[in-house]
Amino acid sequence: MLTSAPINLKQLAGQLGLSSSTVSRALRDSYEISPATRERVQQLARQVNYQPNPIASNLRSHVSKTIGVVLPQVDNHFFASAIDGIEEVAQAHGYHVLIYLTHDQAAQEKTVASFLGQGRVDGILVALASATRSVGHFDKLRQRGLPIVQFDRVNRLLDTATVTTDDYGSAYQATEHLLRAGCRTIAHLRLTENLSISRRRLQGYHAALRDYGLTPDPELVLSASDTDEANIASIAQLLQQRPDTDGIFATVERLALSSYHACRRLGLSIPQTVKIIGFSNMEAASLLAPGLTTITQPAYAIGQEAARILLHALTKRRPVLASQSLELKSELVVRGSTGGA
Amino acid sequence: MLTSAPINLKQLAGQLGLSSSTVSRALRDSYEISPATRERVQQLARQVNYQPNPIASNLRSHVSKTIGVVLPQVDNHFFASAIDGIEEVAQAHGYHVLIYLTHDQAAQEKTVASFLGQGRVDGILVALASATRSVGHFDKLRQRGLPIVQFDRVNRLLDTATVTTDDYGSAYQATEHLLRAGCRTIAHLRLTENLSISRRRLQGYHAALRDYGLTPDPELVLSASDTDEANIASIAQLLQQRPDTDGIFATVERLALSSYHACRRLGLSIPQTVKIIGFSNMEAASLLAPGLTTITQPAYAIGQEAARILLHALTKRRPVLASQSLELKSELVVRGSTGGA
Repeated sequence: MLTSAPINLKQLAGQLGLSSSTVSRALRDSYEISPATRERVQQLARQVNYQPNPIASNLRSHVSKTIGVVLPQVDNHFFASAIDGIEEVAQAHGYHVLIYLTHDQAAQEKTVASFLGQGRVDGILVALASATRSVGHFDKLRQRGLPIVQFDRVNRLLDTATVTTDDYGSAYQATEHLLRAGCRTIAHLRLTENLSISRRRLQGYHAALRDYGLTPDPELVLSASDTDEANIASIAQLLQQRPDTDGIFATVERLALSSYHACRRLGLSIPQTVKIIGFSNMEAASLLAPGLTTITQPAYAIGQEAARILLHALTKRRPVLASQSLELKSELVVRGSTGGA
Repeated sequence: MLTSAPINLKQLAGQLGLSSSTVSRALRDSYEISPATRERVQQLARQVNYQPNPIASNLRSHVSKTIGVVLPQVDNHFFASAIDGIEEVAQAHGYHVLIYLTHDQAAQEKTVASFLGQGRVDGILVALASATRSVGHFDKLRQRGLPIVQFDRVNRLLDTATVTTDDYGSAYQATEHLLRAGCRTIAHLRLTENLSISRRRLQGYHAALRDYGLTPDPELVLSASDTDEANIASIAQLLQQRPDTDGIFATVERLALSSYHACRRLGLSIPQTVKIIGFSNMEAASLLAPGLTTITQPAYAIGQEAARILLHALTKRRPVLASQSLELKSELVVRGSTGGA
């Protein structure tokens, strides 16, 4: 049967006495097939000059050379920079990157997950929506063998690798920076209580307060609303109800900007009356009046590392393991908003 | 042959004496099929309770209920806001949105176009990469019947609808604002000379200068480099070589921020020594020191309108026509960087 006419997968499998799916996986070097079988399949494929049909091959093996990136939003310097890191690594491996936005909505995230489950992508990088409480929609895909890596906004119930920063430590550092600058009544602004990063940042804030002999006050913890205008109003209200507030720790960039607006609206000077520190990757941080002291996350590197873990799984046909998780370091950059340079 | 067993497209076509593709198009209400034939096909389909196979249907008709958005970058408040407008309209129509970034590279844009040509999306919204000089890669897709709408960064050689702002008029207005504030030596910072929006913004700047009796000076026109650091250095160099420069018109947000950095580095005060105006959708514009006077484009509305034109074409199976093009108005917001409030 060794002829010069093109041979298809079924014929190749017939000659080997194996199923088409076994042959297909053996040709892709899948770890599910024993090395001996892989070698036998690949040898015959070379002998008969077997050429896979690229379209059929895509449909069968879902090798679209595409990764999906699921993000809450892009109007955020952290995610914009993380995307750049992801794309650098993906392009170096010849992979396309598709970006899907959830707008922090759980329902939209579920729709996106079901869409991705239709074989459109080979793997997924995800930063969870703030409204997401369960991760069953991603776990279903993971159980079906779709590699997933979580970054920044992660949920440990989804059994896969995560790439995060030291949220607890950074929040401790930010709070301690305000305490050392003389603040004693520090408001904590967060996105939501759902996210593990929000919880860890709150824990770091609490720990620093306690280490400086202060008792955490739940009245000073504010969760974000849907719009910037609503956030500015809530922060202004907090500052009026608690005029002793002398520090604000904004755990997301957007809330640091809203804090500036609220202080301006109330005529409170930064840093004399209220000192502000925020998690931010904003390029303009140093140009604000005054410059914003930031906890700057290595957003680009987070994107790169998450993509590397995913592409390793894809190219080696290995599952993504929780043990591959990484935690990167953030940096405190002191500027005028806390009385620095 | 009217049985309760499922009937497939081929059997339906056989009963009607039509080709499968004609029946398929008639079922989709395509304008390519006469109303009488559409009615005849749809009537029989209802009688026999014909249920299309969704996967085969997608493959055949490329109805993926997905639109692709091709963008230069997302670390830009204009594009981030335009995406939000696009997604609002797409979701209301039950369409998914995939985002592809070109990083302003022509080669990457060609790769993306070829990828999109493989039937992954039903239609495309594109803002061209600054390095793109020809649009053959999109024109090929357009000729194959894939609806395309261009927004913001457009090329008229691609025969399709565009959604833009009044770039000429806004640039005239920005330049005139600086002239009225007393500037006489106004630098013009642009992305590239390739883009039609760059050319129109330059023309508006030239026209305003001439109307105020000034001769455009090519030495004052600067094209952007790849990195912010390189842009800051070029702007600083320009300000040193031409110490008479008393105004900067940055035609993109990024270059307005780089101008702030350059002035700060040289110790030039804004607005006393140099006044700055920039195209920008930056939320933090009012928080800068001093607040940045902006030409603010209706980015969200641009995204909405572009998506509406595309979805009209998709849902009505009509081609996208250049005559559907729209031009929206931008707004001048005066702040401290030009001596305003």
